Amino acid sequence: MYYIGIDIGGMSIKIGLVDDTGKVLCKKKVSTIKGDAQKMMDITADAIDALLAENSLTVKDLYGIGIGSPGLISSKTGVIECAYNLEWFKAPIVDMLKKRFDTKILLSNDANVAALGEVIFGAGKPYDDVIMVTLGTGVGAGVIIDKKLYEGGESKGTELGHTTLILGGEPCSCGRNGCLESYVSATALIRDTKRAMEKNKDSLMWTLAEGSIDNVNGMTAFTAYKQGDKTAIEVVNTFVMYLSEGLMNFMNIFRPQAIIIGGGISGEGKYFTDLVDNYCKSKNYGFLNAPKVDIIVATNGNDAGIIGAASLIKA
Amino acid sequence: MYYIGIDIGGMSIKIGLVDDTGKVLCKKKVSTIKGDAQKMMDITADAIDALLAENSLTVKDLYGIGIGSPGLISSKTGVIECAYNLEWFKAPIVDMLKKRFDTKILLSNDANVAALGEVIFGAGKPYDDVIMVTLGTGVGAGVIIDKKLYEGGESKGTELGHTTLILGGEPCSCGRNGCLESYVSATALIRDTKRAMEKNKDSLMWTLAEGSIDNVNGMTAFTAYKQGDKTAIEVVNTFVMYLSEGLMNFMNIFRPQAIIIGGGISGEGKYFTDLVDNYCKSKNYGFLNAPKVDIIVATNGNDAGIIGAASLIKA
Repeated sequence: MYYIGIDIGGMSIKIGLVDDTGKVLCKKKVSTIKGDAQKMMDITADAIDALLAENSLTVKDLYGIGIGSPGLISSKTGVIECAYNLEWFKAPIVDMLKKRFDTKILLSNDANVAALGEVIFGAGKPYDDVIMVTLGTGVGAGVIIDKKLYEGGESKGTELGHTTLILGGEPCSCGRNGCLESYVSATALIRDTKRAMEKNKDSLMWTLAEGSIDNVNGMTAFTAYKQGDKTAIEVVNTFVMYLSEGLMNFMNIFRPQAIIIGGGISGEGKYFTDLVDNYCKSKNYGFLNAPKVDIIVATNGNDAGIIGAASLIKA
Repeated sequence: MYYIGIDIGGMSIKIGLVDDTGKVLCKKKVSTIKGDAQKMMDITADAIDALLAENSLTVKDLYGIGIGSPGLISSKTGVIECAYNLEWFKAPIVDMLKKRFDTKILLSNDANVAALGEVIFGAGKPYDDVIMVTLGTGVGAGVIIDKKLYEGGESKGTELGHTTLILGGEPCSCGRNGCLESYVSATALIRDTKRAMEKNKDSLMWTLAEGSIDNVNGMTAFTAYKQGDKTAIEVVNTFVMYLSEGLMNFMNIFRPQAIIIGGGISGEGKYFTDLVDNYCKSKNYGFLNAPKVDIIVATNGNDAGIIGAASLIKA
């Protein structure tokens, strides 16, 4: 028996056939059609049919189909209420797919399914209570309580990226200023890397970027940090401080057993999570008696969206 | 049938006999003994016995005994892990009381039981998902999900007052800087009122305080605000802004149906919650499609601790 995991993104929709262990056996990718959810779901359904046929399977071989989508989701009714990037509004995508497939079909927010995917199939398996933050263009967050996805009221919560770190600070995509997202997303890191480079023309990061600020990416500061560049060390330490202070907020709210960090930056691995862990330990002295929180990196990698979507069915 | 509600505080322990509707029929108060939880619980048990005898009741007439306490609590084991103000550490107070009373006895954090009390017996009755913030010396917070108390991992979470509003800002009791508590507690409001008065010697607030800064309290700015004092208007508007931004964080995390404001400041009533509501509506434009959140004041009043403790048994 297998799962189908559907990872809806602003540019493409990835559809994967997933086995019982969370392994993606094969996958397809279709381009996102903005503004027409029905047409998009027709194409997605065709891709699922093809995926099943190519593997000599039918819908009867499926536990079900899980879907992760950006935007505000009503998971109970299977409706995408609004996904600005996709220009989909009040799109009943679960019902659309149910007309094609007689199986269990579930929908949740993409950050939520990423968190669930890590707890069911990835780095979060040993834990019951987990928070996952994905540091990408924005900051996605999922909360797992007692091995179950906690989505907030009307499945519209856990927007942990949109909580204040520095009120009135950097502008945030949500319209407020100073949200955590505006300090610890990859976008924010690149902004802060560029700012530091402009102030420090002798930084090694200019060499790494081949002299052009346009070549800066989310790795630039980390690469130079590991080579001892003073400006990069400042950028990384500030980033670690921002992230740790945000994670300490979430520890104080949820007291998870583990916080899982996902997204490109998590590729830095254990030295990076150790920096965060050490900051939290050194500053969290008001709660010395509080339970320990493990800080670890995600392991579902590039297929995290597909695996997470599949995990909705397994959970 | 009745409840006993026990409200443990830094100065005194209040013990109340509560009926089925959440009404406190009669109560006793004993002084807190620091450092000796066993002796304190012996005295508390004697007070319960007296309360029952005076009302011609026995333990068989009780649904149970609920306890709210400050500090880090293990609610499952009924242990106060650490309550700095009381100098109690690893105090198994539920077991201590069980030796005297053969009935259901439950313990939780004082901010948690205040929230549950409002949902079971007070302003929160119409709602399933509620956050209550109590603005006092500190900022206590309780989270109710689906009519049930959510305490966080190992019952040590929902410290919403200890999440950053302005990282690196005002010093907080928890050891960090810039937590919400350091901006919206009554303590913080009094600090900010005094600061504004020192800068504005012509403010009406000086008259209200009879010329002495030592007479300033949590009402001073609100009283002068209602009389149109410019300095007080600034203090109140800034306070409303801080509080609203904090509450928007909690809306983004939990999407509650209502936020209940308790503590002395909530006595300001509807004009005050309207100020907060209007701020949240005007600034929360990133989440226009999100569910509406009612902002209301607590109604359990001075007996909130006792009623909340009793609600632990009813819940």
